[in-house]
Amino acid sequence: MKVAIMGFGVVGSGVGKILLKNAESIAKKTGEKIEVGHILDLRDFPDSEFKCFTKDFNDILNDAEVETAVEVMGGVTPAYDFTKRLLSAGKNVVTSNKELVATHGTELFEIARKNGVNYMFEASVGGGIPVIKPLVSCLAANEITEISGILNGTTNYILTQMIKNGRSFDEALRGAQQNGYAEKNPSADVDGIDTCRKIAILASLAFGKYVDCTRIKTRGISGVTLEDVKYTDRLGYVIKLIGCARRENGGVYASVSPMLLPKSDPLAGIDDVFNGVKINGSFVGDVMFYGRGAGKLPTASAVVADIIDILENRGKDLKMSWTDSEDGYLITEDETPAKYYLRVSGGSAPADAVSIGKDGEYAYITPALIEAEAKQYAEKLEEEKNMQVIRQFKVLQ
Amino acid sequence: MKVAIMGFGVVGSGVGKILLKNAESIAKKTGEKIEVGHILDLRDFPDSEFKCFTKDFNDILNDAEVETAVEVMGGVTPAYDFTKRLLSAGKNVVTSNKELVATHGTELFEIARKNGVNYMFEASVGGGIPVIKPLVSCLAANEITEISGILNGTTNYILTQMIKNGRSFDEALRGAQQNGYAEKNPSADVDGIDTCRKIAILASLAFGKYVDCTRIKTRGISGVTLEDVKYTDRLGYVIKLIGCARRENGGVYASVSPMLLPKSDPLAGIDDVFNGVKINGSFVGDVMFYGRGAGKLPTASAVVADIIDILENRGKDLKMSWTDSEDGYLITEDETPAKYYLRVSGGSAPADAVSIGKDGEYAYITPALIEAEAKQYAEKLEEEKNMQVIRQFKVLQ
Repeated sequence: MKVAIMGFGVVGSGVGKILLKNAESIAKKTGEKIEVGHILDLRDFPDSEFKCFTKDFNDILNDAEVETAVEVMGGVTPAYDFTKRLLSAGKNVVTSNKELVATHGTELFEIARKNGVNYMFEASVGGGIPVIKPLVSCLAANEITEISGILNGTTNYILTQMIKNGRSFDEALRGAQQNGYAEKNPSADVDGIDTCRKIAILASLAFGKYVDCTRIKTRGISGVTLEDVKYTDRLGYVIKLIGCARRENGGVYASVSPMLLPKSDPLAGIDDVFNGVKINGSFVGDVMFYGRGAGKLPTASAVVADIIDILENRGKDLKMSWTDSEDGYLITEDETPAKYYLRVSGGSAPADAVSIGKDGEYAYITPALIEAEAKQYAEKLEEEKNMQVIRQFKVLQ
Repeated sequence: MKVAIMGFGVVGSGVGKILLKNAESIAKKTGEKIEVGHILDLRDFPDSEFKCFTKDFNDILNDAEVETAVEVMGGVTPAYDFTKRLLSAGKNVVTSNKELVATHGTELFEIARKNGVNYMFEASVGGGIPVIKPLVSCLAANEITEISGILNGTTNYILTQMIKNGRSFDEALRGAQQNGYAEKNPSADVDGIDTCRKIAILASLAFGKYVDCTRIKTRGISGVTLEDVKYTDRLGYVIKLIGCARRENGGVYASVSPMLLPKSDPLAGIDDVFNGVKINGSFVGDVMFYGRGAGKLPTASAVVADIIDILENRGKDLKMSWTDSEDGYLITEDETPAKYYLRVSGGSAPADAVSIGKDGEYAYITPALIEAEAKQYAEKLEEEKNMQVIRQFKVLQ
């Protein structure tokens, strides 16, 4: 099978490397060789082992022998246009581009279906960790009821540094940048945007209908301080950036925010740049998938697994897709009660409050409240009891 | 698709329940209804919703409409004979029977292949946790280098009770029996036999050639005491029953024994009846799968996922199999150096030894030694230094 790689950055060059290095074992497994026919990139790579570089997308589009294209360029432009044209021309597309899948997935699946090909995206969530396929295929006997995950390695690294080494958010962020885990402009990670795209993809797939990531309430980790980390620890919890989605009243509730996890939760022990996705199925209960959520070769290995899947299932709808959703399907206010972490100053502390020795400040866990009640609860403390609410995070149940 | 269920015990009745309860959603997903045509069991179930019970295996074998049989009887007799005859008759077989897969898998896969059907066994390892398919399919771009897992819920429950609640082995075992986690005769669990079958299946599948479970060095948890738990904790480790397998010198080394895990290992936090399987792939690094490794509905949901897989891939070799291995393929003495936990009395304690206040006793972690060296190391202490070696467990690296 002849494939093309579009974008020869970190992931693209990793895909090239795996296809070269594992050529024989893949051929043995599948009974067919995978050949890289074109690599599209505007830069020059004079020292590369590959000699099939092009700067012209049409070289790929017009090559009738190219069955599958790997889109690892990232971003929406021009990846969206390229992907549409490739699928329309009857070529499979494999991607790691979470932004594109989360934004235009619904349309791209439809084009793929109409043209008898597949648009595959295992690498878009959780890097090399198998998540997309196990969710669709291995858990097929279950109704999925809830998904929650640590889906971004950069923010998990920063929080781990704060929790384990007592570093401030700013220090930890600088460390992440020095280690190459965070971009110069870290907003997509730190503000939860990356996590939001990933939970939108997982929720769309698990529950079958499109969840629009731009409408998911998203809160990053820049408001988490070392004090919160200390209070949290004393209360018996760990603070993590969690993307979560749940069936609720016929629709789906989804959110991204720092949340408190009981130390016994399997997600609570996931540290550093590792990711974890916890899925609740109606029969199986909780299962969790864990591993490196990013990086050149892990992500590339997920791309190559998708290529192999296409190779072994030519002409078959692999059903990694979702359909459009109606208005009101995405529920933006959580109607299931949850406990909250409340950090306040003033007033009189309840019996189970903890202190870290800061003037008049304490933190405690509220009874279970729905989101609207939680807002009122905090307002009441401020208005009626003259207290100041410093922080309020939800507890993952 | 018409299916038959053989064995209407815990898992079999779970399969029936899921197929009834999810009939519509499965039909929607696959475009076809799954109908239970026969249930084979020697007992009577007058109150069951099902009315298709039989005590005669031939009712299934001779029904040309039965495409797939579910074998959840357990044991080798008569399951082995039944499975052979069904596969030979061109019927797919889905099983949760680890003993049969670990013992006669190689032959059964060959019969299935010759007859254009599949012998599927996702439920035989890890209950409802997706492991078999992710290993074969999602990690297809990787060479698997190592697998280690907590594969038995009963022993993990007992060890967790010892570690977290300070119960003795005997107390914890009684508790497990009272909770229905352990059989009256707990040997298959406690002595590591169940874990051994499961790691043999995983190793055979991951490395492609049969690993004979009867030849894997297997040590259970009955020799682990509360003292070992305490020493281990003080040394910064957790003790777990680990099945592990690794490529080594062109063959495969596999073992089952209590091992020490650093507290930061993702397997270290897996408690109670939960299972976890950690897989190292050449590109993806470590990934881990976690969940309930047993139980009626989790296990049944894995069986049903296999049925759906067969339904969606009629006539296709799903390649969940392995081939025979040559003599010497299974390496019984570990040639990769590992550290060891050593609990001794007498002699003079090294600087990093820990004590729990027991007369002249202490424990420490040795330098990395290969298995043969570790044996000599312990003998030397006893012979030359007049010390007594009370316990020696390997540290998982």
